[in-house]
Amino acid sequence: MVHINNNFTKLSKSYLFSEIERKVGTFKAENPDKSIIRMGIGDVTLPLPNACIEAMHKAVDEMGSAATFRGYGPEQGYLFLRDKICEYDYKPYGVNITPDEVFVSDGAKSDTGNITDILGSECRVAVTDPVYPVYVDTNVMAGRTDIVYMPCTAENGFVPELPKENVDVIYLCYPNNPTGTSLKRSELKVFVDYAIEHKALILFDAAYEAYISNTDVPHSIYEIDGAERVAIEFRSYSKTAGFTGTRCSYTVVPKTCVGYAADGTPFPLNEIWNRRQCTKFNGTPYIIQRAAEAIYSDSGWEQVKQMTGYYKANAAVMRNALETKGYKGVYGGVDSPYVWLKTPDGMSSWSFFDYMLSEKGIVCTPGVGFGRSGEGYVRLTAFNTMENTIEAMNRL
Amino acid sequence: MVHINNNFTKLSKSYLFSEIERKVGTFKAENPDKSIIRMGIGDVTLPLPNACIEAMHKAVDEMGSAATFRGYGPEQGYLFLRDKICEYDYKPYGVNITPDEVFVSDGAKSDTGNITDILGSECRVAVTDPVYPVYVDTNVMAGRTDIVYMPCTAENGFVPELPKENVDVIYLCYPNNPTGTSLKRSELKVFVDYAIEHKALILFDAAYEAYISNTDVPHSIYEIDGAERVAIEFRSYSKTAGFTGTRCSYTVVPKTCVGYAADGTPFPLNEIWNRRQCTKFNGTPYIIQRAAEAIYSDSGWEQVKQMTGYYKANAAVMRNALETKGYKGVYGGVDSPYVWLKTPDGMSSWSFFDYMLSEKGIVCTPGVGFGRSGEGYVRLTAFNTMENTIEAMNRL
Repeated sequence: MVHINNNFTKLSKSYLFSEIERKVGTFKAENPDKSIIRMGIGDVTLPLPNACIEAMHKAVDEMGSAATFRGYGPEQGYLFLRDKICEYDYKPYGVNITPDEVFVSDGAKSDTGNITDILGSECRVAVTDPVYPVYVDTNVMAGRTDIVYMPCTAENGFVPELPKENVDVIYLCYPNNPTGTSLKRSELKVFVDYAIEHKALILFDAAYEAYISNTDVPHSIYEIDGAERVAIEFRSYSKTAGFTGTRCSYTVVPKTCVGYAADGTPFPLNEIWNRRQCTKFNGTPYIIQRAAEAIYSDSGWEQVKQMTGYYKANAAVMRNALETKGYKGVYGGVDSPYVWLKTPDGMSSWSFFDYMLSEKGIVCTPGVGFGRSGEGYVRLTAFNTMENTIEAMNRL
Repeated sequence: MVHINNNFTKLSKSYLFSEIERKVGTFKAENPDKSIIRMGIGDVTLPLPNACIEAMHKAVDEMGSAATFRGYGPEQGYLFLRDKICEYDYKPYGVNITPDEVFVSDGAKSDTGNITDILGSECRVAVTDPVYPVYVDTNVMAGRTDIVYMPCTAENGFVPELPKENVDVIYLCYPNNPTGTSLKRSELKVFVDYAIEHKALILFDAAYEAYISNTDVPHSIYEIDGAERVAIEFRSYSKTAGFTGTRCSYTVVPKTCVGYAADGTPFPLNEIWNRRQCTKFNGTPYIIQRAAEAIYSDSGWEQVKQMTGYYKANAAVMRNALETKGYKGVYGGVDSPYVWLKTPDGMSSWSFFDYMLSEKGIVCTPGVGFGRSGEGYVRLTAFNTMENTIEAMNRL
């Protein structure tokens, strides 16, 4: 008899964003004439940078000619892209990452989910609360149901405290999804020092790195001394260059970063992740990798800065409008495209979501969908157009 | 202390194709002037069909304009592609698959690997021997090390016998990689009947379906009565349309196909796989899905038939040449782009590989790399150019 992975029965039935889609779908069907402004799921609206478009046209043509056709590429990604990543994303911050420490893939959601493959089932996992649901769900699927939550609330300034229990793996996403808040170098150092002391591993999701404004916020966890021994970093082009439907990201696993076998022998995680990727993944499409490479050209770099600048301006519009309209508790939106809003009058997250949808035609994300400490908050994203962002703020 | 998944320490260090690449690399460095013909890894050489190129140019342009830009798509793939799959890949064979039973992804390697996520760790797995290494390695990673092997040799005509032990999951790849042999409907029915009787699951890899010539060979396992209750089918555009570097495939999980919870309750595997994909995957690039859709256009369909026809002609050239030159034991190459060749004079697979590389400049794949029963065989692929295929045969 074929048994299912019984851990799937422990998952809540609906994935947060599917549930939102369902509610929005129902509302649209019942109110076909009402305009809806989507500030819920973190999807972008601006088209791809022109440099990426040009690079893809060129790559498509290459695929149409036998002389320049590309078949299977390296599972780790092409060197033309990994070289640029090291040079542009790390070197300027004094971080020495080599191309064989970079693994290009189809998305940070895949990588932050698949990374659980290489961890022992006995690992105790800590996550912030609220948290991106993928970290929790993928660990539940792998049987790690005893998860430690580190609350992030207005009371602690959204800076998680170190877990009181011993933990082996800590997920950190900074700039944070969903709260839009960031950690300073000194605050992140506390976690790196903990991981070094406890031989723990930090899974650092830096998908929103491109939105950092404050100079005391690190762009990479590897800016912190010793992090290269205890941290894996995830990056994404989704929010950097509008790649949500184009699908490219990368993961950095330094060669000095280790996990431990059952008998305590240290094993380089770089080797183990490489083995995982070579066995269960066949590389990112060549055409897509050329699009990502184009981000690092002079014109691409400039276009990407304009794009993130546009969304950052939206975030500023939201922050200002919400504060002007008297909302108490407006967080994030400075180093991040997300604004984390305390609901008025102690409303629950889903009540405020329903109110916003039915009364204002605005889709937000209920904070409680990200964890217990998200109750009483909603997440608003800056990824809509400036026009829609202003219109949404006027509706409030 | 962060423990690794200790199952990784049970894996053999080198993945077969990496080892071949290493040997070829060394040979090339030592013999820079020698011409090498690659008939080893199953990578294609013909450029993408023109219909796919045109569709991608159009899709790239759409991504460059705000009005037509696409962000996150459905994790399951766009309906425009899933509709075509049902209509063109299944309906002509009398198989009624609906779009919500189709999951588009970035590759059959990913899906055949990731499918282990949804299976209980206590499942006993059976594979053919020889076998595509991914099935074994991904199960070892998941802790299923007690694998049952079903030998496929010249003696049994490469038709595996049902396992004597009770098994819960059976991987079948037909037309077969690596032997190039196929199963008739009546032979496949034996396995479907076994799965129905034992409440087992068949994971049916049909990546080479486009190469089927014989009319008594099924194109889909769902041509067999009852298979929709006990089988998941994997398809790929890699060998169908030259997508090895373009990355698109799909997996069919019928809604009637079930696994069982620990207490014996049946669970639809479609729901569980959907949950897995929605949590750990964010969809295949829009541009790539448009390329796949174009395969089903009139011109695309014709171009793809020409492409597979070209490789099938290569396979015929190989079969004829090897038999004419007196090789005993030439298998496959009729319903498949692979020829499975018995090594002469009882040479081992790796000895013959080394001989072929150093003396003839031909890269093949040592059969033993696919399992114990592959010892004494090598795999030759028909994916090179006709010119190189003829040249390689002349060198023998």
